[in-house]
Amino acid sequence: MDETYKPSDAVLQALQDVANKLRIHSINATCASNSGHPTSCCSAAEIMSVLFFHTMRYKTKDPCSPCNDRFVMSKGHAAPILYAAWVEAGFLEESKLLDLRKINCELEGHPTPRLPFVDVATGSLGQGLGAACGMAYTGKYFDKSSYRVYCLLGDGECSEGAVWEAMAFASHYRLDNLVAIVDVNRLGQSEATPLQHDMDIYLKRCEAFGWNTCVVDGHNIPELCQVLLQAQHVKERPTAIIARTFKGKGLKGIENEDNWHGKPLPKDSVDGFLSELWGLIKTDKPPCPVLPKEDAAALESGPISLPSPPAFTLGDKVATRRAYGVALAKLGQACQRIVALDGDTKNSTFAETFKKTHPERYIECFIAEQNMVSVAVGCAARNRCVPFASTFGAFLSRAYDQIRMAAISQSNINLVGSHCGVSIGEDGPSQMALEDLAMFRAIPTCTIFYPCDAVSTERSVELAANKKGICFIRTSRPDTPVIYPPEEKFEVGYAKVVRQSDSDKVTIIGAGVTLHEALAAADLLASEGMNVRVIDPFTIKPLDADTIVSSARATAGKVLTVEDHYREGGLGEAVRFAVAGEPGITVQCLAVTEVPRSGKPQELLDLYGIGAKAIVAAVRMTFSSKFQV
Amino acid sequence: MDETYKPSDAVLQALQDVANKLRIHSINATCASNSGHPTSCCSAAEIMSVLFFHTMRYKTKDPCSPCNDRFVMSKGHAAPILYAAWVEAGFLEESKLLDLRKINCELEGHPTPRLPFVDVATGSLGQGLGAACGMAYTGKYFDKSSYRVYCLLGDGECSEGAVWEAMAFASHYRLDNLVAIVDVNRLGQSEATPLQHDMDIYLKRCEAFGWNTCVVDGHNIPELCQVLLQAQHVKERPTAIIARTFKGKGLKGIENEDNWHGKPLPKDSVDGFLSELWGLIKTDKPPCPVLPKEDAAALESGPISLPSPPAFTLGDKVATRRAYGVALAKLGQACQRIVALDGDTKNSTFAETFKKTHPERYIECFIAEQNMVSVAVGCAARNRCVPFASTFGAFLSRAYDQIRMAAISQSNINLVGSHCGVSIGEDGPSQMALEDLAMFRAIPTCTIFYPCDAVSTERSVELAANKKGICFIRTSRPDTPVIYPPEEKFEVGYAKVVRQSDSDKVTIIGAGVTLHEALAAADLLASEGMNVRVIDPFTIKPLDADTIVSSARATAGKVLTVEDHYREGGLGEAVRFAVAGEPGITVQCLAVTEVPRSGKPQELLDLYGIGAKAIVAAVRMTFSSKFQV
Repeated sequence: MDETYKPSDAVLQALQDVANKLRIHSINATCASNSGHPTSCCSAAEIMSVLFFHTMRYKTKDPCSPCNDRFVMSKGHAAPILYAAWVEAGFLEESKLLDLRKINCELEGHPTPRLPFVDVATGSLGQGLGAACGMAYTGKYFDKSSYRVYCLLGDGECSEGAVWEAMAFASHYRLDNLVAIVDVNRLGQSEATPLQHDMDIYLKRCEAFGWNTCVVDGHNIPELCQVLLQAQHVKERPTAIIARTFKGKGLKGIENEDNWHGKPLPKDSVDGFLSELWGLIKTDKPPCPVLPKEDAAALESGPISLPSPPAFTLGDKVATRRAYGVALAKLGQACQRIVALDGDTKNSTFAETFKKTHPERYIECFIAEQNMVSVAVGCAARNRCVPFASTFGAFLSRAYDQIRMAAISQSNINLVGSHCGVSIGEDGPSQMALEDLAMFRAIPTCTIFYPCDAVSTERSVELAANKKGICFIRTSRPDTPVIYPPEEKFEVGYAKVVRQSDSDKVTIIGAGVTLHEALAAADLLASEGMNVRVIDPFTIKPLDADTIVSSARATAGKVLTVEDHYREGGLGEAVRFAVAGEPGITVQCLAVTEVPRSGKPQELLDLYGIGAKAIVAAVRMTFSSKFQV
Repeated sequence: MDETYKPSDAVLQALQDVANKLRIHSINATCASNSGHPTSCCSAAEIMSVLFFHTMRYKTKDPCSPCNDRFVMSKGHAAPILYAAWVEAGFLEESKLLDLRKINCELEGHPTPRLPFVDVATGSLGQGLGAACGMAYTGKYFDKSSYRVYCLLGDGECSEGAVWEAMAFASHYRLDNLVAIVDVNRLGQSEATPLQHDMDIYLKRCEAFGWNTCVVDGHNIPELCQVLLQAQHVKERPTAIIARTFKGKGLKGIENEDNWHGKPLPKDSVDGFLSELWGLIKTDKPPCPVLPKEDAAALESGPISLPSPPAFTLGDKVATRRAYGVALAKLGQACQRIVALDGDTKNSTFAETFKKTHPERYIECFIAEQNMVSVAVGCAARNRCVPFASTFGAFLSRAYDQIRMAAISQSNINLVGSHCGVSIGEDGPSQMALEDLAMFRAIPTCTIFYPCDAVSTERSVELAANKKGICFIRTSRPDTPVIYPPEEKFEVGYAKVVRQSDSDKVTIIGAGVTLHEALAAADLLASEGMNVRVIDPFTIKPLDADTIVSSARATAGKVLTVEDHYREGGLGEAVRFAVAGEPGITVQCLAVTEVPRSGKPQELLDLYGIGAKAIVAAVRMTFSSKFQV
């Protein structure tokens, strides 16, 4: 430890004064809203003061500047003190704080990017550090810029495994531009945290995970200034500052006491607390933050296009997962901002195809899907990167909370889930994505691509790279024939009618593997003299209701959906949603209805009633009796 | 370390021979299936041999005995060696191994409880240790039995945060009956693991997380025997055995080489490998495992009933989350097997009400929802407990992979998600469960309760305790009036028509908070002279299609759903599913359609179009123009 560094007394006093002003703002805001977390703000007041007015380099009037140091408030419930810091920095009006949590105010209960100084939404604990890792990785390896990333965590959230995924990631990739500060205020929501004030255990854990670590008194401004400066000189390792603090610090009778989590101060005691805090303040202006270096390059903008059309031939048998790798590698040539992430499944998802051509833009996230998604969100922040993160679709369920939060973060990440459905075969149910469409459909900002061949997969990847919001591409394990010519045009929300005649009796909607089963069924039925229409929806969300409805009308209102997914929340329900209110259309759904088992792909498609045989049987049944649903 | 303990040479030879037989079985099985993970089996052969034929105490003919030591194969892809161990133990026929991964065989690609010796399905990595924690907690604190729990992990899966949640949990609760063995074979699926063979880092991490830890040569049988014996004498701490191994151990040219993950051995080299392994074997029988103590009590069985009817009065305003706590505390009186878990939200979910009356049966899981769900699954294994695990519904999304795997595990856990929807108010979107119905509907074994008042909440809890499969109870934050008398009967899959007349124009289906909004709308409409029917579905899955269809018929086919959930995958889609194929019924859905924000509960219900005003407007629109959807 460099024991010599100490700011002047005047600076120290000003920083202490800011800390107390942050307390005052936090109290005022939560009193006005009559809800919120003033005590969780008070424990972090000195940390926030030193970070925002001594350590961090940023433009107070341009919080989104790509050159700024980044700050992630992982303990999102301490939002008021973040807002207070931006008041003291001069970006927000102080009066705005009194609208905290009101319906017309962007100062929400937990931070969201409705505020320009918030890169990622927080409030689901344990997610901030992963996003900070993505920002730091981007700064160090892609932007090659001097901006640094600071993440403030609560102690309670250190119980989340996602924190330790991020800890391992940061040290593995030597993110020496990343600093985590843990506000160890000892008290969780409903009782003390498991480690309370045992600073030594925190120290050992962070060190074991490869971080330069120090324990400090989180209310001691000189100490905070010193360790934050020292962190700037540590090479090849991220720094963890374990700050011993007290919840409600500065509020007598509340400080370090139970049962004050998430409660505004009692109305009758507020004036007393405020005047006590005001009495400590001796200066009237915060120190001015240092400006950052202007070394984060401006980015290419405009649409990202495949450098050449898909190079597949009609009839080629290519798994869509394989085509994903080809497409991403091509797109990576066209745009330097494309990066790929994977969770040690790159030889199955074919992210390795990208890695082979662009190794410097591939991030191996190992088997830690939560962190992979958070890192992707961090990479995408301030539009620095266009990330594509892949794993088995089943394992994206591991990161559903991160995906949900990514939508709240207004993130533009692209997620690719391979090995969907029972058609993966022998590996069995643990490896089969059968709820991923339900998961992603319920994400408001999400576009879902479900390509059935290599050509449409390439176009999915291209469209996803340009589409705002979260994009999910569902790829399949088995080889399937190419059915579209290289020049075929695809658009989000536009289905393809892949087979039709003037005498179609039923509209069959399949996707991915089941589109091919539908085509096989159509062949069989045609040999019996019955024509059917077959639709490839291409995107499941948004779904092309117009094409589906007009096709349904052309087939006497009869629609059959078939999907390699559980019955709930998938293609069938999406189609029913799309045709609701259209009288005379009846939708029958074939889907997986129980936990499946190991077996050969075609055996499983047949066993669970989503193969060509089942489709033929369902169509025949339609015309032999009442239309079943 | 006790350096003195060593089994006889005969025992050591027999154990080494078993290890090689396990290798042979694993090779034969994966050759027969032409898929699977022989190399991941070979690294664990000595560990499995010592565990199953020297350390563990169990009945080879009664793998489900409550007295047996437990074994969890967290690295589920090494399933063949688990099956091989049970062949050597005499429980399975050797010939069965040749049916590995076949559609009519229970020996699936990854272990599932279709096999009696599998308590929890594995294959989604990093989940086994949490389940093992639940079993060990149950053994030590509930069963107070001498059985011990062994969990075999892969090194790759140690990147999963869930592993570290479990590590923290096990040391916090001093689970000295738990042993984790990490098979550090250095190689992941697509490349080397991040820590490769750096045993010291594993050691430091496990020690920092509070475990008694030792590093061993995982192919050295005397060493394994010794440390596993020593672990039995360690008090108040779980033991981690970090075993240095080689992937493909015993297979020359494959051992410790890249690119052998998940591949059966080449057909032309199999015979050579097998004869080499056979050449090492000198004995023909494995040592006989020691029988366990008979000290796990038989359990009370039969239905679990509330000891007294709900003690609420019509019109009382009680949040369903509060009623959950009351119900569970009462049920805990009736049945000693009821246990509660929560993730530091017990004062919000009201799990604390249970804790107050039954502190010895409450497990604080801190902010680690993945581990909470896995611990619950472990507690429920072999029907030792009836666990209820609660947190904010939004944060159950953190554990979606664990929930998915719990269904594959045929687990009977009960999950309770509070704070659903925008009606929580000021905390904002990160805290609002808006995709939980979509999540849980897509779980095949799941029953979803969505009570609207305190009385139906109590009955939900009672019914859930008795229902097989996963149960999810969705509770709400706001106080809502009691609308059912204490004697009202509830059944899974039966809705309640809570308002009706002979002249109803529309059927409105609400649930939880929106049921009350529907009732308020009905009052408003009645004052205008229009009667509407109002239905409380009670369970969303299964949904009472009969009541919905017959009500719809009574209201000229007009149905309006209103839900505090995103539009996709929730109540509206469930109702459309239920009425599909019933001609003449049109379902209009009111739901949240974008990422919401902070505000007051009623403001948000109105802003997102799911409050009484929006319902009234939708009904009026129905009769002023074409029925909108």
